[in-house]
Amino acid sequence: MKTIPVNVNVLNRNSEVAARVNERLTAAGIKMINLLGTPGSGKTTLLEAVLGCLEVDRNSVAVIEGDLYTAQDAERMEALGVRTIQLNTQGACHLEADMIERALDELDLEGVRTVVVDNVGNLVCTSEFELGEHLRVGVSSVTEGNDKPFKYPLMFQTANMVLLNKMDLLEFTNFDTDRFVADVHSINESAQIVFCSAWKRTGLESVVSLFK
Amino acid sequence: MKTIPVNVNVLNRNSEVAARVNERLTAAGIKMINLLGTPGSGKTTLLEAVLGCLEVDRNSVAVIEGDLYTAQDAERMEALGVRTIQLNTQGACHLEADMIERALDELDLEGVRTVVVDNVGNLVCTSEFELGEHLRVGVSSVTEGNDKPFKYPLMFQTANMVLLNKMDLLEFTNFDTDRFVADVHSINESAQIVFCSAWKRTGLESVVSLFK
Repeated sequence: MKTIPVNVNVLNRNSEVAARVNERLTAAGIKMINLLGTPGSGKTTLLEAVLGCLEVDRNSVAVIEGDLYTAQDAERMEALGVRTIQLNTQGACHLEADMIERALDELDLEGVRTVVVDNVGNLVCTSEFELGEHLRVGVSSVTEGNDKPFKYPLMFQTANMVLLNKMDLLEFTNFDTDRFVADVHSINESAQIVFCSAWKRTGLESVVSLFK
Repeated sequence: MKTIPVNVNVLNRNSEVAARVNERLTAAGIKMINLLGTPGSGKTTLLEAVLGCLEVDRNSVAVIEGDLYTAQDAERMEALGVRTIQLNTQGACHLEADMIERALDELDLEGVRTVVVDNVGNLVCTSEFELGEHLRVGVSSVTEGNDKPFKYPLMFQTANMVLLNKMDLLEFTNFDTDRFVADVHSINESAQIVFCSAWKRTGLESVVSLFK
């Protein structure tokens, strides 16, 4: 049997486009944040908290929403008056850099200093694809359990900041925060780990600072 | 416990292999359950609850654990004395039917009446691949939020039974169970919806009955 290394070719081509996206944004003085996490980890609620209630200038931020089919998350962003574009993957499990490139063509970037990509909810595939981001923020939550960093390592390995979300539910679980910190740092020594509750809007100071 | 390193073959004709797996199991009087859900939804904890504490004959069950790299979940099953085989996808996001076929070749099926596949944690890709199962059980949890059935419809559309897990945390969230039931039934009229807490071992009667 002949084996064709399809994945490698796809990833190489994607990296080239990602580099182009990154150059374009950097030249325009715009920072791009790639927000990753499993479905229900709280990515969009985090953005609502940061953009809706905190002292971020909403005109300086644009959001690219990645979803399979719906525009639910984009509608949540638009309700806050934030410039938003919806990317629907029609069932595909991740975003690729060429989708971001097309989204940037459509977005009005006048006055924008930060572009956030709210990636498809997926702890496996999304992390494999660079989108041209300057920063990766990975969202995990205490209700997902302690075993995630080793079971799904790529997001934790490649994130600049790892948010441990839903800290308001910590006392009702058997989640061990010390173990989580040790596990994440064992695979990514330099990751900044932040405990927060997007819903209760606590612990978000260092996330907010990324948007300024 | 045996570990089979799996290389995903993209040219695999998955449905044909799935049909072959299904025929083989049916002929042997064995039922296969495909357990699906996002990382942290509680699939393995559910199996621990069903196999560890309830009145299921553990010798009549075999478990196929799907994971990217680790054998953590298989070890949890083996600790209960259940026949288990680990499939590692080496980073790939789902299982395919040929992996199940190879696992069945390795498993001692003497006396087994139920094979459970504890699929890779992924709410997108896993549902696209039939494995030859007789039943699909989809696990969602109240901490994931209400929007999952429409945002990630395929699992909910194709599941025979949908478990709403982590009901012990319901009171600390804004999750609306009536809306969940209505949303799931709007895309899958015949799905049986079960409220449970795998961790607290409540509401599991109808799941247990699948294993008998």
